[in-house]
Amino acid sequence: MAAALDRSLIALALRLAEAAAPVAKRYFRQPIPIDDKADASPVTVADREIEETLRRILAQERPEDGVIGEEFATTRPSARHTWVIDPIDGTRSFITGKPCFGTLIALLYEGEAVLGVISQPITGETWLGAAGHASTLNGAEIRARGGRTLDQAYLYATGPEIFTRADERDAFARLSGRVKNTRFGADCYAYGLLALGCVDLVCEAGLKIYDYAALLPVIRGAGGIVADWTGAAPVLAAEGTTGRILAAGDAALFAAAQEALALPHP
Amino acid sequence: MAAALDRSLIALALRLAEAAAPVAKRYFRQPIPIDDKADASPVTVADREIEETLRRILAQERPEDGVIGEEFATTRPSARHTWVIDPIDGTRSFITGKPCFGTLIALLYEGEAVLGVISQPITGETWLGAAGHASTLNGAEIRARGGRTLDQAYLYATGPEIFTRADERDAFARLSGRVKNTRFGADCYAYGLLALGCVDLVCEAGLKIYDYAALLPVIRGAGGIVADWTGAAPVLAAEGTTGRILAAGDAALFAAAQEALALPHP
Repeated sequence: MAAALDRSLIALALRLAEAAAPVAKRYFRQPIPIDDKADASPVTVADREIEETLRRILAQERPEDGVIGEEFATTRPSARHTWVIDPIDGTRSFITGKPCFGTLIALLYEGEAVLGVISQPITGETWLGAAGHASTLNGAEIRARGGRTLDQAYLYATGPEIFTRADERDAFARLSGRVKNTRFGADCYAYGLLALGCVDLVCEAGLKIYDYAALLPVIRGAGGIVADWTGAAPVLAAEGTTGRILAAGDAALFAAAQEALALPHP
Repeated sequence: MAAALDRSLIALALRLAEAAAPVAKRYFRQPIPIDDKADASPVTVADREIEETLRRILAQERPEDGVIGEEFATTRPSARHTWVIDPIDGTRSFITGKPCFGTLIALLYEGEAVLGVISQPITGETWLGAAGHASTLNGAEIRARGGRTLDQAYLYATGPEIFTRADERDAFARLSGRVKNTRFGADCYAYGLLALGCVDLVCEAGLKIYDYAALLPVIRGAGGIVADWTGAAPVLAAEGTTGRILAAGDAALFAAAQEALALPHP
């Protein structure tokens, strides 16, 4: 196991999540303008204000660190420590009033995700994963569940529309056809439920670094497995990721899900 | 507008929701056995215990009234007042730890739905609709939003799998292709979000009386429209329903959605 992450960095990540929460709450279920980005994904004043708030704190507390965020340009890309921020993961849940979105905060150390926070400000749930520590939900240790076969597994994905390529749709359909049940509509919250031992699999595509960097330490620190669909560690850079993420309660289920996805060999 | 519903019946409905909440909370995110019913839908000890709890209170307070519930046999089907209970709507959300399920409680008076409660015990949200009263969320008046065109509309459905017939799937795909965005995975909570003015459309099929009876007064008392896909009032009996429910923020959007569904004439 890696050396335990410094407590002051953990405290800072939690402080960032605490700073984001009142902004999200202030705009939640309020009529606010929604802009469509180039990729047609929506963004609101809440997304931008949260990211600005977190960047301001980081500039003050960790002026040497890099920042990769969903809404603004990357700063100091070659820094040893880089923070990765998704101010509101699940903006479509946020703008329709459903409390399954989350603020995602990750810390990369020399390119490895060593700290992750998933914060759901409406339900008041904060997942924390940090290298060398067991993952927690609101301070209580959590554990993914193992020992499930594919036909007993509950599978989550944000929605069928995230599989934009035909081969991804076919692969997901194969996996979905083998599990006990497939549910949609939980965004990052689904990975939190997996780390909690309530969900067995999450399978998605088209994700960006800020969508998944924070999930990795949370799931790994709860004993779960998370990787790209090939089993390789997800690329922790703004470019070059396949965006295909698979998370499972244990390694045997991960392997079975991979086999069901049955991606053609490249 | 119908005569305002007696406050004592409203108080009783809220008392039922309050009695259900601690049972749901006690079993939420706990490892509990899950049985598959004849239609492969899951049921847990929580579903059964909540329905038993509510039936016990009703037997004491309203011994003459009928009860239709999801888990146990109908009693006094010809009573003037009949309570309709879904102890946990969204059992698949419940068993995967996602707080979008709800306890649904409706009161029928001479076959009309005059009172409805949607209770989400984990987030502590209780929607109430009652004939002659404006609908409320935790006591505060709510209002569905109107004035949206189909291409601006956010549409919810529990999941693609609820459209079991090919003609239903095709109709939903037509509607989904015309709206701004389609989200899945909110169960009864989606109708609550519509009544709150956060969501514009909910379209589902295969529902039973206990899935929708409570939704009708909540949506109508918030100024929204809810009917079956033909525009007719949903059948409020355990048998004879098409189970196809369409809810919209206003009548113009309801009509546009109906046209998009473009059901073949019978």
